[in-house]
Amino acid sequence: MPYFDAAATAPLHPVAREALLAALDEGWADPARLYREGRRARLLLDAAREAAAEAVGCRPDELVFTPSGTYAVHSGISGALAGRRRVGRRLLHSAVEHSSVLHAAARHEAAGGTLSEVPVDRTGRVAAEDVAAALRPDTALVCLQSANHEVGTEQPVEAVADRCREADVPLLVDAAQSLPWGPVPGGWSLLAASAHKWGGPPGVGLLAVRKGTRFSPQGPQDERESGRVPGFGNLPAVIAAAASLRALRAAESGPDEAARLRRLVDRIRVRVPELVPDVEVVGDPVRRLPHLVTFSCLYVDGESLLHELDRAGFSVSSGSSCTSSTLTPSHVLRAMGVLSEGNVRISLPYGTPEEAVDRFLAVLPEVVRSVRERLGVPAGPAASAARQAPGSPTAAAETVTPESSVPEAVTGSPGELVLDALGKRCPLPVIELAKVIGEVPVGGTVTVLADDEAARLDIPAWCAMREHEYLGERAAERGAAYMVRRRV
Amino acid sequence: MPYFDAAATAPLHPVAREALLAALDEGWADPARLYREGRRARLLLDAAREAAAEAVGCRPDELVFTPSGTYAVHSGISGALAGRRRVGRRLLHSAVEHSSVLHAAARHEAAGGTLSEVPVDRTGRVAAEDVAAALRPDTALVCLQSANHEVGTEQPVEAVADRCREADVPLLVDAAQSLPWGPVPGGWSLLAASAHKWGGPPGVGLLAVRKGTRFSPQGPQDERESGRVPGFGNLPAVIAAAASLRALRAAESGPDEAARLRRLVDRIRVRVPELVPDVEVVGDPVRRLPHLVTFSCLYVDGESLLHELDRAGFSVSSGSSCTSSTLTPSHVLRAMGVLSEGNVRISLPYGTPEEAVDRFLAVLPEVVRSVRERLGVPAGPAASAARQAPGSPTAAAETVTPESSVPEAVTGSPGELVLDALGKRCPLPVIELAKVIGEVPVGGTVTVLADDEAARLDIPAWCAMREHEYLGERAAERGAAYMVRRRV
Repeated sequence: MPYFDAAATAPLHPVAREALLAALDEGWADPARLYREGRRARLLLDAAREAAAEAVGCRPDELVFTPSGTYAVHSGISGALAGRRRVGRRLLHSAVEHSSVLHAAARHEAAGGTLSEVPVDRTGRVAAEDVAAALRPDTALVCLQSANHEVGTEQPVEAVADRCREADVPLLVDAAQSLPWGPVPGGWSLLAASAHKWGGPPGVGLLAVRKGTRFSPQGPQDERESGRVPGFGNLPAVIAAAASLRALRAAESGPDEAARLRRLVDRIRVRVPELVPDVEVVGDPVRRLPHLVTFSCLYVDGESLLHELDRAGFSVSSGSSCTSSTLTPSHVLRAMGVLSEGNVRISLPYGTPEEAVDRFLAVLPEVVRSVRERLGVPAGPAASAARQAPGSPTAAAETVTPESSVPEAVTGSPGELVLDALGKRCPLPVIELAKVIGEVPVGGTVTVLADDEAARLDIPAWCAMREHEYLGERAAERGAAYMVRRRV
Repeated sequence: MPYFDAAATAPLHPVAREALLAALDEGWADPARLYREGRRARLLLDAAREAAAEAVGCRPDELVFTPSGTYAVHSGISGALAGRRRVGRRLLHSAVEHSSVLHAAARHEAAGGTLSEVPVDRTGRVAAEDVAAALRPDTALVCLQSANHEVGTEQPVEAVADRCREADVPLLVDAAQSLPWGPVPGGWSLLAASAHKWGGPPGVGLLAVRKGTRFSPQGPQDERESGRVPGFGNLPAVIAAAASLRALRAAESGPDEAARLRRLVDRIRVRVPELVPDVEVVGDPVRRLPHLVTFSCLYVDGESLLHELDRAGFSVSSGSSCTSSTLTPSHVLRAMGVLSEGNVRISLPYGTPEEAVDRFLAVLPEVVRSVRERLGVPAGPAASAARQAPGSPTAAAETVTPESSVPEAVTGSPGELVLDALGKRCPLPVIELAKVIGEVPVGGTVTVLADDEAARLDIPAWCAMREHEYLGERAAERGAAYMVRRRV
């Protein structure tokens, strides 16, 4: 049964499993004790730290093990901010950071700190110049992921690190998604990562703080992990995490596997828009993680799509609003300004067989078709071709059109229709917009009243895909009013 | 090779090992996901929470899993203090709490909070009346361990919980040492524990917060573990922890094993003072943990003792000053006012064979004798019998006396000697005191100048064991001056 959600958590790597089993016998004692079991544990801990530091590209005494990647991010941010308190309390981060960074930022703001958010382009990438321009005298810390966890886009960490260095501001890199595939280049100051993302066991994160970085650990401390992570460590898992990271990086397997997965992802990036009408593949097609691809399907709700894919045996993730507890689209897709409905993230675990990807490509078109059909959106020829992500070939996939029965909630004059989609959830406002656009003449407008958060993202995205003009939104009594001018 | 340090960390219980292996296959996915691997993980997490809650004696929705017992203590204390901020900022704890509690208390004080410490008696127990007397209108939280980790003494948690309840102050119980052996009785409000103490894997603690307890989690939050423990959980370890706790408590094994270990500990408590001269067995002989016993050996340094026991194949712990990184005796022994030199803690893991204990009893006398001999303290008849802990039979063990060569650094008049032990480490100041006491007439005094922290504890303890009178200490240019009157 293909599991395609490695970016959430990867199944245990065989090397990790083997190392964990051995460590349960050899590495269970307290490495702080001087008797033989403790000395053995200390040797294993030291070796794990050396292996992890080598994979990270830092000195062993710069690296500590934490109970999770989130813990590493939280303690890294709080320690770096505290260490720079005299300089200022401004935290700068990209708009597409992992939630653990955003939660730490929110906490910092609640405690009186200030935040600056650096925007991203449509591929999800920040520009190093934008970071440089946002640096201010009171900037205490910059946080930037090495690659995005939802769309796979790599960030220009090296260039940003250079800019930070020039401004004498530390850079914390959240390397959770990219560390399995290689060290993070450049002069970063702090780095956080998470073992279960690379097939290590859960319960292990790592935090590297390069020498010379001001760092003041927050919260109670003890003598463990250089005073940065109190409490009895999880040594068997640490040993397994280091062993599997080393195995992933080994010359004979790591790069080959990365290249193999990259080819499989390229196949998905090319074939999905050919096989499924009205799909937007998002994220950078080249400067990206090897194993991850994300696309969104017009006129589809993510929840049904995930459910149907699960029934078909595929475990995937989604950034659609209907799949989140807050009923808002993923902040990553929002920051990129791309379609959020029918969103699917595929992240292939190490060793994913080619056939699993082929099977997915065989199943997906019918799954999307059936979800659309249930929503009253049959396949058919459409006025415009589906928008293609840069780098993928122009596809000849059929497009889809909602059935032409005009929704009841339409008012206004023939050239200026108003569509009341209040109370309707994604993707219905967009589906109803598609149904009524043909009712106004070219040059006429449709104003959509909607209170679903996804509409703010998906109506402009639909306009771009269908080559209509998005005129903007204005406040309304409930939700907002989104104005569209028919252009084709 | 007998490992006698279960109170530090216990080897993995066979049930935990089996459950961990199964969970690595079945419980590795994210329980927050809706696909089949996630749903299966959710079921396993829910079942683990129910099992743990049953063992703790709380509702499943009152219990969260943390990355360690220390994490549980730290987040329990900070959350409870924040929840009671309007009431006051006073934290009350016993003098013999685990370092994790003391570290959290220190942090609270550094942030402007206040602390009250409740003393213990010579067995290491607090009196419920003392806690009640220390409760004040601004007391935000009381912390009390269920049983002491160094000497095994059980605390009167139920009585203290009653007093706290009357005063409407929450009680946090650190149950790390006792939870393997049974639920903590009484109306506590919060409870923390650690899986690796009961043979579960490391990386799992648990925090129970009973309904109605004001609790405000500190630090960044996410949607995991009721918003109390952010980050991806360590599900395989959680499953293994819950399985092994349930196994330990099972009627057919748990109580029987506790009773068996209790008998083995009783054997150590009785036999060690019979076999080894001048030993003080500390901690309550009856109201104690089943598997733990601590004793101190006069005229012995803990470091050599641990080293020789390790060479003989026994892994034990010590609260002697020379075995700590700070060169101070354990705060527990200090608070109890008992001898700290030559301190040994034995804590028997589940399943310890009887023969291992017998072998230890066979080896110990020669180990102590050899360490004493190296320090110039041969065995011989002495003026007074070794002091016996209450409950152990009066033993006829030979006592030891330091060789009578008077140390050089003695000055003063014949009836009022001054012994300069400055710069000398435990147990040397006490050994030299024992050498010179015979030089003054009965009724005469010896003043010991010492700057080793252990002297403050061990000179009075030696006086009690040898039935001399301890006259107290006064400040000196370096260290302190300890005054002893010869009585026998």
